Parts: sequence; C-alpha cells; structure tokens
Amino acid sequence: MKNIKLTIEFDGTNYVGSQRQKSGISVQEAIEKAIFQLTEEKVNLVCCSRTDSGVHAEGFVANFISNTSIQGEKIKYALNNKLPADIYVLQSEEVSLDFHARYSAIGKTYVYLVNKSEKGKAIKRNYCYFAKKTIDVEAMKEAAQYLIGKHDFSAFKNVGGSVKTSVRNVTELKIEEKEETIKFTISADGFLYKMVRIIVGTLIEIGYGRRKPESIKEVLESGERKKAGKTAPPEGLYLKQIYYNY
Amino acid sequence: MKNIKLTIEFDGTNYVGSQRQKSGISVQEAIEKAIFQLTEEKVNLVCCSRTDSGVHAEGFVANFISNTSIQGEKIKYALNNKLPADIYVLQSEEVSLDFHARYSAIGKTYVYLVNKSEKGKAIKRNYCYFAKKTIDVEAMKEAAQYLIGKHDFSAFKNVGGSVKTSVRNVTELKIEEKEETIKFTISADGFLYKMVRIIVGTLIEIGYGRRKPESIKEVLESGERKKAGKTAPPEGLYLKQIYYNY
Repeated sequence: MKNIKLTIEFDGTNYVGSQRQKSGISVQEAIEKAIFQLTEEKVNLVCCSRTDSGVHAEGFVANFISNTSIQGEKIKYALNNKLPADIYVLQSEEVSLDFHARYSAIGKTYVYLVNKSEKGKAIKRNYCYFAKKTIDVEAMKEAAQYLIGKHDFSAFKNVGGSVKTSVRNVTELKIEEKEETIKFTISADGFLYKMVRIIVGTLIEIGYGRRKPESIKEVLESGERKKAGKTAPPEGLYLKQIYYNY
Repeated sequence: MKNIKLTIEFDGTNYVGSQRQKSGISVQEAIEKAIFQLTEEKVNLVCCSRTDSGVHAEGFVANFISNTSIQGEKIKYALNNKLPADIYVLQSEEVSLDFHARYSAIGKTYVYLVNKSEKGKAIKRNYCYFAKKTIDVEAMKEAAQYLIGKHDFSAFKNVGGSVKTSVRNVTELKIEEKEETIKFTISADGFLYKMVRIIVGTLIEIGYGRRKPESIKEVLESGERKKAGKTAPPEGLYLKQIYYNY
C-alpha cells in the first residue's frame, strides 16, 4: 500500500470545480477516472482544497492510496497519458501514509490576475479579469496593508464553508504591476470560502475610487460580508502553491 | 455606402481558421453573422489573410461595405455585443472605399511562442508550443540571420497557396528569451502558405542540435520544401499586426 502525492496544474474553465458535484465533471473525478484507467483501482482522491468552477491551479496537490506497482515518480507520466489535456501532473511521488493533501497543509499561495487593457479580451478571456484602465494600483497597495497579519476575516467569507474559526494569518499580499497586468499574490495559513476573490473584489473597488483605502479596516472590523466588495470572478484566480511540513 | 475597417483579436482554438470552409465555423463566418445581426446586411467580409485552425490573432484586419447608419468607431461596441467571447473587435473605423484588407496590406508581423518548461502544459496548451528544456536559443538566433532579407522562400512554403512569386522580404526575425518563454517575431512584406510555421519548425530542429545553424542557407537555396523542417503546430502562432499605407 502506497500513498501517492500528486502536484497538478489544471485549467478550470471546463470543470465545475476541483471537487465532485452533481452538476458536471470536476477535476477530482477526471483524475480519479485516469487513475482507474491506469490501476483499475477506484480511489478516493484527497484534494488540498476546494476550488470553484473556472478557477485554475498551477500547484494543486492531491493524494491517494494505491496498490499499484508503478513507481511513485513514474505515475506522473502514466497519468498524463490518460488525463484530458487541461489537467497535467507536474510531479508524483510516494509519501508517508499519514500525508493528507488537505489536513497536512500549513499554508497556501493564490495569484489573481487583472488585465487593465482590452488587449487579450478574446485570447485571455478565461485567464484573467479585465478591469478599467484607470484603476489606481497605489490605492490598492495601501489598502492591502490593512489585511496583512492575523485577523478575523468573517467579512471576506461567503457562506458555504464549514470552518471552526474565521481567523486567518495573511502572511503576504503583494500587488505588482507589469505592463498591462496587475498581479495579486496572497499567502496565508489557510483561506475561507471565496476569501481571495472577495479580497480582490474589494481592492478593485478601492482601485476604482469607490472606497477609500483605509475603509478596508472598518470592513475587516465589522465582520460583515455585506460591507466588503463584490466577489471577483473566478477566471482570474490561480491556486499557486500549497505548503507542507514534509 | 461605407467601407468599414475592423481590427480584431481572436482565439483561433475553436475555429477552422479565419476563412470560410466546409468543415466548420470560421472566424469570417462568425463576424459576418454578427454584422448581419447588427445591420441585417449579408456582407462579404474581406480578410487580411488566411490563418489556419488554432492560429490566433492580436491584430487581424478585415473590411466590409455597409449602408449602416452606425458611426464607424461605434460599430466596435455594437459588434462586440453580438460576437462570441473568443472574437473581439479592438477598433472599427470608416476608411476610403478603395481600402482592401488583403490587397492594401504592405507588410505583416507574426509572433510564435515556445515554452521550454512543462509549467503551463494544461493552462497554456492552446497558446504556445512546448519544447524541450535543452533547446539552444543562440543556435536558432544564428540560423535566423540567414533568413533575413529578400529571398525565394520556396523551401518554406506548403502547397496550397496561389501566389505568383515565392520571393519575400523578411525585414525582422527576432528571437527573445524571457524566463521560460521563447518569442519569435517575424515581419515581412508578405508570407507564403505556412511559411512562419515552417521557419519556426526548422529553427526548433536547429535548437535541438539536429541541424547546424548554417544548414538553413542550403535549405533556402534548395527551394525544396522537403529540405526544411517540420511545420510547427498552429497553437503557438499569433498574427500580430498588418501594415497599410493608410
């Protein structure tokens, strides 16, 4: 019996999300199907987190228990032969049996891409959010400072998650501008349901001048979802990396 | 009667190419359909060039004759409301009646993107060609020098085009490396059928060490298609810009 850890890139455009759902095909099901084709085992793929439909991943992590004779690092090649083109295994390895893609995680990094040019509206339509040219990046950077650190992020959480506490430690919230792209990088010990997209959506409203940078402090303190901004659309979001103590 | 010039971005993934074909929907048909929905006119869209299925465009140019009362620069917004999400009009304008998107063109620039990392294999699968890490960019740069200038490009042409001469003037063939991406920029007064993809395919074989940089001179002089390399796949190719004397 082996515990296989997979590091996966996927294009979330054509999936209902990472996790199994009634409404369509999930990334989880697509991978479980490929594992079945390879090993004839009906595994239950443990996923690092739940991502919504349209959200992408550059470093999604999952694990499964298997009796396959294929070597850990070779599973990558075998699975990539079976998987659809929008899911790609970057790495596979055998890990200790107590490794759990979700519970063993100690931190995550997400990236959110905003494009402030209309160039790309066709080609990048599924891979970023298109904002107005006039968006004020400095104002967003100022506002971001209030979110860094350990806070109760209840105001930046949608109903739907099942968590004990809404306190999270945001260790990084970087906003970089490069030509027409604004890249948000957010790291934390964990994220609440839709937290990244609500943070980005609220920062965009600040960038548009509809809110003042310092107002985000009040939103945070209120703990009320309705005080925060709109949830930014899924296509700009990328699960970049999951951290483990392994 | 107006002559309307459109500058268009499109994602070629889901089209049979820019030009009408029996086997499926072309970009031309999709735009003609949107024009019909807008003006109730069955126009014949004149296109700057024929691109293959999977090839993208950042600055495709087309024109059509119309009796619409909509102002030239407003047509952009009206058409974008009717067009599918993978086609976007960047600019619309009224031009003189003798403007012809194809015959008035005096030059074109194409870009070809190569990725030498496996990162992106899922997300960018339709937007670049994935090459081996070991590709030698300096060798490709050296080889590229032999192609710049006025030459008979018969060896870099597939059958299928109907042109009087195979002589073209390549004014730019730039190869830039940035992180994991190799970007080819090729400009000429015109291109033969599949010329850019055959040039890139041959340069890649040089990058892999299968041919010597100076061998490209012999290929050029031979005038024989079979002496050149494989045609690089369409998904890495972008029609970037068309030049007019207007």
